[in-house]
Amino acid sequence: MPGNSFGQLFRITTFGESHGGAVGCVIDGCPAGIKITEAEIQKDLDRRKPGQSKITTPRAEKDKISILSGVYEGVTTGTPILLIAYNEDIKPEDYAEIKKLYRPGHADFTFQKKYGIRDWRGSGRASARETLARVAAGAIAKKYLKEKLGIEILSFVQQVGDIKTDIDYKKITMDMIESNIVRCPDSDAAKKMIALIEEVKADDDSIGGVIFGVIKNCPVGLGEPVFDKISADLGKAMLSINAVKGFEIGSGFDGVGMRGSEHNDEFYVDSGKIKTKTNYAGGTLGGITNGEDIYFRVAIKPVSTIAKKQETIDLEENAVELEARGRHDPCVLPRAIPIVDAMSALVIMDHHLRHKAQNN
Amino acid sequence: MPGNSFGQLFRITTFGESHGGAVGCVIDGCPAGIKITEAEIQKDLDRRKPGQSKITTPRAEKDKISILSGVYEGVTTGTPILLIAYNEDIKPEDYAEIKKLYRPGHADFTFQKKYGIRDWRGSGRASARETLARVAAGAIAKKYLKEKLGIEILSFVQQVGDIKTDIDYKKITMDMIESNIVRCPDSDAAKKMIALIEEVKADDDSIGGVIFGVIKNCPVGLGEPVFDKISADLGKAMLSINAVKGFEIGSGFDGVGMRGSEHNDEFYVDSGKIKTKTNYAGGTLGGITNGEDIYFRVAIKPVSTIAKKQETIDLEENAVELEARGRHDPCVLPRAIPIVDAMSALVIMDHHLRHKAQNN
Amino acid sequence: MPGNSFGQLFRITTFGESHGGAVGCVIDGCPAGIKITEAEIQKDLDRRKPGQSKITTPRAEKDKISILSGVYEGVTTGTPILLIAYNEDIKPEDYAEIKKLYRPGHADFTFQKKYGIRDWRGSGRASARETLARVAAGAIAKKYLKEKLGIEILSFVQQVGDIKTDIDYKKITMDMIESNIVRCPDSDAAKKMIALIEEVKADDDSIGGVIFGVIKNCPVGLGEPVFDKISADLGKAMLSINAVKGFEIGSGFDGVGMRGSEHNDEFYVDSGKIKTKTNYAGGTLGGITNGEDIYFRVAIKPVSTIAKKQETIDLEENAVELEARGRHDPCVLPRAIPIVDAMSALVIMDHHLRHKAQNN
Amino acid sequence: MPGNSFGQLFRITTFGESHGGAVGCVIDGCPAGIKITEAEIQKDLDRRKPGQSKITTPRAEKDKISILSGVYEGVTTGTPILLIAYNEDIKPEDYAEIKKLYRPGHADFTFQKKYGIRDWRGSGRASARETLARVAAGAIAKKYLKEKLGIEILSFVQQVGDIKTDIDYKKITMDMIESNIVRCPDSDAAKKMIALIEEVKADDDSIGGVIFGVIKNCPVGLGEPVFDKISADLGKAMLSINAVKGFEIGSGFDGVGMRGSEHNDEFYVDSGKIKTKTNYAGGTLGGITNGEDIYFRVAIKPVSTIAKKQETIDLEENAVELEARGRHDPCVLPRAIPIVDAMSALVIMDHHLRHKAQNN
Repeated sequence: MPGNSFGQLFRITTFGESHGGAVGCVIDGCPAGIKITEAEIQKDLDRRKPGQSKITTPRAEKDKISILSGVYEGVTTGTPILLIAYNEDIKPEDYAEIKKLYRPGHADFTFQKKYGIRDWRGSGRASARETLARVAAGAIAKKYLKEKLGIEILSFVQQVGDIKTDIDYKKITMDMIESNIVRCPDSDAAKKMIALIEEVKADDDSIGGVIFGVIKNCPVGLGEPVFDKISADLGKAMLSINAVKGFEIGSGFDGVGMRGSEHNDEFYVDSGKIKTKTNYAGGTLGGITNGEDIYFRVAIKPVSTIAKKQETIDLEENAVELEARGRHDPCVLPRAIPIVDAMSALVIMDHHLRHKAQNN
Repeated sequence: MPGNSFGQLFRITTFGESHGGAVGCVIDGCPAGIKITEAEIQKDLDRRKPGQSKITTPRAEKDKISILSGVYEGVTTGTPILLIAYNEDIKPEDYAEIKKLYRPGHADFTFQKKYGIRDWRGSGRASARETLARVAAGAIAKKYLKEKLGIEILSFVQQVGDIKTDIDYKKITMDMIESNIVRCPDSDAAKKMIALIEEVKADDDSIGGVIFGVIKNCPVGLGEPVFDKISADLGKAMLSINAVKGFEIGSGFDGVGMRGSEHNDEFYVDSGKIKTKTNYAGGTLGGITNGEDIYFRVAIKPVSTIAKKQETIDLEENAVELEARGRHDPCVLPRAIPIVDAMSALVIMDHHLRHKAQNN
Repeated sequence: MPGNSFGQLFRITTFGESHGGAVGCVIDGCPAGIKITEAEIQKDLDRRKPGQSKITTPRAEKDKISILSGVYEGVTTGTPILLIAYNEDIKPEDYAEIKKLYRPGHADFTFQKKYGIRDWRGSGRASARETLARVAAGAIAKKYLKEKLGIEILSFVQQVGDIKTDIDYKKITMDMIESNIVRCPDSDAAKKMIALIEEVKADDDSIGGVIFGVIKNCPVGLGEPVFDKISADLGKAMLSINAVKGFEIGSGFDGVGMRGSEHNDEFYVDSGKIKTKTNYAGGTLGGITNGEDIYFRVAIKPVSTIAKKQETIDLEENAVELEARGRHDPCVLPRAIPIVDAMSALVIMDHHLRHKAQNN
Repeated sequence: MPGNSFGQLFRITTFGESHGGAVGCVIDGCPAGIKITEAEIQKDLDRRKPGQSKITTPRAEKDKISILSGVYEGVTTGTPILLIAYNEDIKPEDYAEIKKLYRPGHADFTFQKKYGIRDWRGSGRASARETLARVAAGAIAKKYLKEKLGIEILSFVQQVGDIKTDIDYKKITMDMIESNIVRCPDSDAAKKMIALIEEVKADDDSIGGVIFGVIKNCPVGLGEPVFDKISADLGKAMLSINAVKGFEIGSGFDGVGMRGSEHNDEFYVDSGKIKTKTNYAGGTLGGITNGEDIYFRVAIKPVSTIAKKQETIDLEENAVELEARGRHDPCVLPRAIPIVDAMSALVIMDHHLRHKAQNN
């Protein structure tokens, strides 16, 4: 199948270009009986929307979502849900220059070569605006998972450039994450991160970072051997987000220096519940959830769109200079937090339904 | 769909438990007209097979592959290819003890809870023996990619424990990789890695490491926006391999400390070919190949099976001690190299066919 | 996957209830470079729309289609195409009565039991209004198939009630089909059919019939053994249309009385082209197209919505009487013609792309 | 995906050519905990096997099935089940002549043109021997459906050539079906059918017929709107069987002559259960099961392999004469009965799992 769908049983198909008529998605496979309103979805979208703080792009898109099918009198009916946000604040003239050349770090070149045509306005389909649809769909999945299964999903900015917090994820709440504009629950680190982003912005440049994601209270047994391991599907979900260059779960890259005797999480029983003493596995054994916290890290490269002068080539393959004039983010991590949450929710929701199909 | 298939158009479905009747796979979607013999496939399997050196498990499985359908007079016919290896050297008594308990770091617990039953012999379906089928299928994909498109796929052990080589991947050949038993093309580092593995083995323990993978000469345009990015599908492929805990492509986790102006790979034209001056992207822009080398790193945890004493619980949830008696690898990385190569081949082959479908 | 998608590589996902916000679909996998306008699509939709003649429902829906993504400057870009028609002329009061009961022959009962909830307005998701999206998507597929491959798709009303034409499909043109409101190219039969429909309508009743479908100039080789035979996929496509109860291809049910020696279509060569002397197979051998005309018949039951009094039960399972007040078609066949054409186009388009993937 | 898989959650992938190494399938998605033995599966295979009576082919294939994975100590484990039957009684010399030409009514021509190569021995992949795998997989599905849900599946030969029984399907038992070699539960009609088949056989010819299929005790709610209607998926399943040219459900083609007021099945309550007074719908409303019997008819063309002389062309496109020497069935219907049953079971099993995923 073409690449615009994610999930098998809770399946979203996203559509839309940054400056086309609309962006959004169809959710096929959402169980009936979930109460959901546009306002609830909007809350998550507002965490992603441009212009929310001084360290994000000043574009003033409202990202207002409409539900046009699949929900009747505020309740899902089991039929496809169309979530749509019409595009506004379109200033294609901001992008007129990029029509003629390939921006470094962007998908202009690869789209042009793959399809022989591209909607160049605002990066078209390659724009991160596409993730709006993921966040909207994820909001429904998150609500279901929370209400039916008690599953908690959250993520935070752990690192920006070389500034990193070593805060323990177990102590973090959503309020702490939302307490500052960079979405780092460690207020000291947050201040430094904000300062760094402002410095980078002033320099017409951009910076990357790491997002730390957590899924708590996941029941034992989700994930399908052998290819559709929870870890593999989470990895794919995160790596499908624009600008993501790395994913690790549990001990990740640091775990390679450990011995098996240290890394193996020993089982014990605590008040009738089977637990592990440590959790280097990150909540998954053989790709199946074991009831411990799932935690992972996502590496995000610096935003490709910068105002600094760069060398590149135009469509006729002549060397040219590019000075971007669009309104962009110096660091996407604060706005990427709800996207990471949404993708976590989509993966867990899909595996929950798959588990229900095969098991009792 | 259940989780035992990988790929959409070059689609493999693997089957088999470690100590059941057989392991193998069906390939559905292999183009007609490819010359292939069991001997060619066997070559790759021999790189994966147990007992190949003093640093691998002494189990003497022959892993002999048979082609039972889809190939006529040495040529693929476009119909499903059954690749099968019958299980031999089965010593279930080696595993009798594990029938009654959950080994730390293993999937015993999660399989039991998910399915209410498990074939405990040699880890059953969770055994890395399943990857034999991937290597066999990957051998056919590799041959096609090499002959039709000139694509080169290789990988090597970059790190074992804290011993790491900083050799430049561009200088590496298959011969260099095969020149020592640890499959690290840097002979000095290789010696240290082998020594470390022997030390770990003597200590009844195990150790992890990092594999570095490369795909060269990939044409521009492979990969499907937005979910089925080449980077996302490679990530899923690698994270679906037993014991893998992390994946990064291009600049990966190190790239987060860079500025956009540094990370953006500038385009230029060299002898009529569009290239980038640097390749922090790792050969993919917007999830679509840009013609530069694809390179990535895969983090592999220490093997869970160790002879050292460990604490755990039995099926009745009593605390017990485990001392494993099976024959295992102190470090799986040397044997995981052909698996990483195979998964690379399966991803690229599938995306090649998907690209052919939609483009000319 | 849930059931609202059709096709693998040219994949449509439809959404929308009859009286919700909108109906439409996302096409994922449409090749780039096809010129398409809303006006072209509208032409096909106008053949399906209500109120087009005295023998169709008087509902005055305009069925106006908008393209909101995937097309840039009139050309497809290879990204998902959103086709949407907003719902107008909504008179839910027409349907208020059916909120409380299960109409015979309708899906009210099964939706209610399956989902525990249903959007009862105008049959909700079970409404034939959903087929609007299929026709819109089919219009794009038809254009591609015609321009790139010269494939002609058409269908006509062969039978209404017991009135049947025995006209030879080879002599039929689109103009002949469009020459009367019942879309039967035999004008004598058409007159009788119209008279019968008017009689049935006056009697507050409804009537079924048979549509004859044809696909000409299809290249040799489309269709995938063994499950995704062209014949099987066409059958599924037609049986997925509301009210369809039967499908036969080539000799169909009549062929069972023939001998093999009579039914086997003998090959011969005519001006360098391999042909068959007869075409009982209906253009497909082993599920793969053989270059001969594909032809098939589709049985459509009488419309379930009738104004006549009927006995049924309400949601509390009490016996009640129903007298429908909605505006309905006495015979859906004339409006079903473009739906059959669209489904033919979607099947052939999908198999064309699948064939391109695996073959050269 | 390529075409050798059927089902989404109970998914079979078949492999194998008639005269290659083996035929069989992998079932992915079979729930854990089902008791199954090779002997149970063999029973169904014996109903399909060649040489079972004087009116079937005299080929003496044993069709012995082996389970090589996914079943441990007689119980399914939730992992892929490999079912395999090795090919024996191979006499390729019977088919040597057909290597050089295209048999009328066969897939020789279309396979050759599609793939540029074909395994011509015994029709290769296009052989009905492939259906052996379907019957084996269906046996497991049938057992599950019977034991867990009380669903009964059966089918019988309703018509051979122009000889047809009008027996009421409700009165039929498996014993009645198995009481004669033609598998028609009406003993008078059966005798005539057998006589006709013997006559046709003596004449070196072949004959077609109609199979009537029934699924009883199916719960309300199976089937997914809008494309994956139970009726559409049953249709596809049957049309994917070799030689099938037509499918109708409920009133089928005969229903087109009825009025809506006659065809609509009125609801009533009988002992607390909602039923319909008539069942023209054939157990499905809006593509979802309504609890009534599902019944359908399958048209099967006369076998293409006949000993009679026929005209055709060879690979070089010269006109030639063919006199087949292989051992074939004069009428496949008696052996097709277990295939129809198996496909019914696969469809219902798959939809049962899909329903479980989305509903409670």
